[in-house]
Amino acid sequence: MKKYRVAVVGATGAVGRELLGILSEREFPLCELRLFASERSRGQTVRWRGEEYRLETLEDLDVFSGIDLVFTCTDTEVSRRLVPQIRARGPLVIDDSAAFRTEPQVPLVVPEVNPEVARNHQGLFANANCSTIQLVVALKPLYDAAGIVRLVVSTYQAVSGTGAQAIEELRAQTGEALAGRALQPQVYPYPIAFNLLPQIGTFDERGDSSEERKLAQETRKILGDDRIAITATTVRVPVFRSHSEAVNIETQEKLTAEQARELLARAPGISVLDEPDRALYPLPLEARGRDEVFVGRIREDRSIKNGLNLWVVSDNLRKGAALNTVQIGELLIERGWM
Amino acid sequence: MKKYRVAVVGATGAVGRELLGILSEREFPLCELRLFASERSRGQTVRWRGEEYRLETLEDLDVFSGIDLVFTCTDTEVSRRLVPQIRARGPLVIDDSAAFRTEPQVPLVVPEVNPEVARNHQGLFANANCSTIQLVVALKPLYDAAGIVRLVVSTYQAVSGTGAQAIEELRAQTGEALAGRALQPQVYPYPIAFNLLPQIGTFDERGDSSEERKLAQETRKILGDDRIAITATTVRVPVFRSHSEAVNIETQEKLTAEQARELLARAPGISVLDEPDRALYPLPLEARGRDEVFVGRIREDRSIKNGLNLWVVSDNLRKGAALNTVQIGELLIERGWM
Repeated sequence: MKKYRVAVVGATGAVGRELLGILSEREFPLCELRLFASERSRGQTVRWRGEEYRLETLEDLDVFSGIDLVFTCTDTEVSRRLVPQIRARGPLVIDDSAAFRTEPQVPLVVPEVNPEVARNHQGLFANANCSTIQLVVALKPLYDAAGIVRLVVSTYQAVSGTGAQAIEELRAQTGEALAGRALQPQVYPYPIAFNLLPQIGTFDERGDSSEERKLAQETRKILGDDRIAITATTVRVPVFRSHSEAVNIETQEKLTAEQARELLARAPGISVLDEPDRALYPLPLEARGRDEVFVGRIREDRSIKNGLNLWVVSDNLRKGAALNTVQIGELLIERGWM
Repeated sequence: MKKYRVAVVGATGAVGRELLGILSEREFPLCELRLFASERSRGQTVRWRGEEYRLETLEDLDVFSGIDLVFTCTDTEVSRRLVPQIRARGPLVIDDSAAFRTEPQVPLVVPEVNPEVARNHQGLFANANCSTIQLVVALKPLYDAAGIVRLVVSTYQAVSGTGAQAIEELRAQTGEALAGRALQPQVYPYPIAFNLLPQIGTFDERGDSSEERKLAQETRKILGDDRIAITATTVRVPVFRSHSEAVNIETQEKLTAEQARELLARAPGISVLDEPDRALYPLPLEARGRDEVFVGRIREDRSIKNGLNLWVVSDNLRKGAALNTVQIGELLIERGWM
């Protein structure tokens, strides 16, 4: 089997670290691995599969001309600047940021949902937003069976979606709060310990946050249906890992809860956990480190004719970010679309 | 001004303690105060306005024949058994539990919303569920102005809604989690520290939880409109105090976000906090200890013709429980309905 020269940019961030673990677990077919990080990490090394890798900085981008596939786990601003320069050196790029997701010629790929869009590419692929990926994985079997008219989504998003500093902020702040000391927010505008923040990203003039807009735009792009009506409220919660979503769905055709449960149980990438009388339902703490999108609390919503409710939980750093990114790479290799 | 002989049953619980503080703050017109608790508190005293009050147990219910007004801050099971026996001794009872809320002859009162239903009573009043009270306070001005067709509500509920033991469980468990120790849930079926539990109460055969059913039934009863279609997902979050709700509303007549904002700002009991560009929106940590229902993130939902989104936060032990209970008592006194 052919092996590839791979680079990870942003290797020390929350997503980058997770991605390195996943490349190892899944035995990604690589013959060379180069790790890049910002100036702050200069001189440091990272251990991967028993070997030490020196972290490289991004001074001389010509090193990318010897690479086949680059995973960029960087901020939107950094990706916007860096990715075109890397692409110009030849490698395929799978970018985890929001920089290119809405560009029509950039495939926005969730392999369980829309693998075919990866075929016709111009060398650049976007990974969807974490809250979108788990949503579309859960929606896909229902969409195919019954069509989707409208979604009302409320999210409960973990701090790791913000990054490694936010994980540390929740940890440190919680300790301060338990000790009765005043809280000093740095990453977020307000304390996140024992609190909720109804802001993810920045607000537009209509009052929607950038996370809410992404969820709507990306869901329509990935499901390939511009007519789906979507409204969302996205909220940061004091949870380290795994995003949760209360999803209210109006389908075109009627689906009973039992039909929805069967469709979801058969679908790839989904684990149905839905025995409420035995207290079995998805939990962020249990989804941590797992690959699946967990779906439970599957109920008919009798407030409308064709209504369903779902509770959808998935590890935002794995399926919501690093795992999906690696799966896009695997898809390209398996189908011969590299 | 006439003063009343008042008793508080369940005086050592999370709601009972809050209620005692509110009776003091608001200078409730009382000439006698008797405090009751379970066997566990036998022999203990509680300090109130500089005096020590001995906690009484519920052995001899005849003591209630000398009381005018009883606040029962007890579990549903306890209330169901105890309240009829107290009522038989003469006093008016305002019950905080779910025991009598759906009974047609029992007024379910939120003074800002439906004070007039308290007029014709049979001596027993029910306080609504915490998640319902803040919801109907926020809905009332919109309902009056434009009618409400349908609600999709997702809640983010604090552990104090469960009671004093749950507050202690979150505190202790969070410390254990930070120390890297295994978590031993007692009050909840799973750890609540850094986790979310999509279960509040018990599930029926349709998969709805008792909290979700209460929210729908009580909202219809308090707004006095059985036609409002409601679906809810209620979730426990690792927050000590204040419930938050993402509320999606379909109104009968169109309301712009600006119109909704003006209606809400003028309504009693509501504080509008809605300047997202300045990061001003309701937060559970800020609502703690406050009387108002805070409303923000007021947005038109363009996924339907007449759609609105709100983010509603209030202290579940105050407006959601103890404060509303005391306000019912004040209403009866002010209007001469005692």
